[in-house]
Amino acid sequence: MKIYLAGPDVFLPAPLQAAAAKQAICSAYGFEGLFPFDNELDFSGLSSFEAAMAIYKSNIALMDRCDLVVANMTPFRGASMDVGTAFEMGYMAAQGKPVFGYSNDGRIYADRVTASAPGIDEQGQSIEPFETHDNLMLEGAIETSGGVFKCDSVGLEDYYTALTTFEAVVKAAAERLLP
Amino acid sequence: MKIYLAGPDVFLPAPLQAAAAKQAICSAYGFEGLFPFDNELDFSGLSSFEAAMAIYKSNIALMDRCDLVVANMTPFRGASMDVGTAFEMGYMAAQGKPVFGYSNDGRIYADRVTASAPGIDEQGQSIEPFETHDNLMLEGAIETSGGVFKCDSVGLEDYYTALTTFEAVVKAAAERLLP
Repeated sequence: MKIYLAGPDVFLPAPLQAAAAKQAICSAYGFEGLFPFDNELDFSGLSSFEAAMAIYKSNIALMDRCDLVVANMTPFRGASMDVGTAFEMGYMAAQGKPVFGYSNDGRIYADRVTASAPGIDEQGQSIEPFETHDNLMLEGAIETSGGVFKCDSVGLEDYYTALTTFEAVVKAAAERLLP
Repeated sequence: MKIYLAGPDVFLPAPLQAAAAKQAICSAYGFEGLFPFDNELDFSGLSSFEAAMAIYKSNIALMDRCDLVVANMTPFRGASMDVGTAFEMGYMAAQGKPVFGYSNDGRIYADRVTASAPGIDEQGQSIEPFETHDNLMLEGAIETSGGVFKCDSVGLEDYYTALTTFEAVVKAAAERLLP
């Protein structure tokens, strides 16, 4: 079975190294891991917007080839996970494919948003009270698709790169999905 | 045709008022607007997590009834849009439904992320260089599904509530999709 390796790992300083490490873990548990890596495309002659669209189509084609997704849901540039990864979880969920996820931040969402009053953020907007680790649509997709979510509190030095929780989720996926 | 009104508007201090205003605009252009409103559900006897799952299933059922989505992509608690809305754009895109979006922030994504060097954020991670208004998967879905994205620079006082750009997108959707 093929795993779509969704996550902001593509933005790391060494994305190829991150991809290889994740793919090695997938292989160890009997999966093939597919990683969206933008640079395999030929952008020559394309405008900036055309290049973005080419990457979009490439990632969609990669998801269509995969049987499940394991999403890196570690908070990215704000209180929440990467929005591109959230989009991909929705895309896979709509196809009825199992959605798995992990985060290197063990806190629930409400504990990551700066509150001005109980349940209210600094802009006066309500903070979801459901003890999920991000917007409820994400853990909803994991729970209802037969996936697993795991998280752990990882220190800042390898907050974006630690793969212990990723490996635990791949192991859980193998136990659920492989013969 | 039915529009799924995706966005963090559900977290506004007056979500029912926001819903009514959007639905009135949809009606004026010949659409029916459906708004995910959590409080119509009966949460009695449910745990916090069970309540979240009930809302998830309710939103999924609502999306399945809709023909297109108009997503509020205004930045929410960070550099990017709301992740729940991003998930829903992916869910609708996978069903082959047209994805429309708007933002009350006219800046491209790269201009909203604090850089430590050209193209590099404060954590040393790369910033997408494509001149899209958020992660490329989102405008990719809009462009390839036949949708339209519009944005405008709205002042802070009605950054989260202004509907001028929303209305422009609903108008564009009517021109593209209605007889």
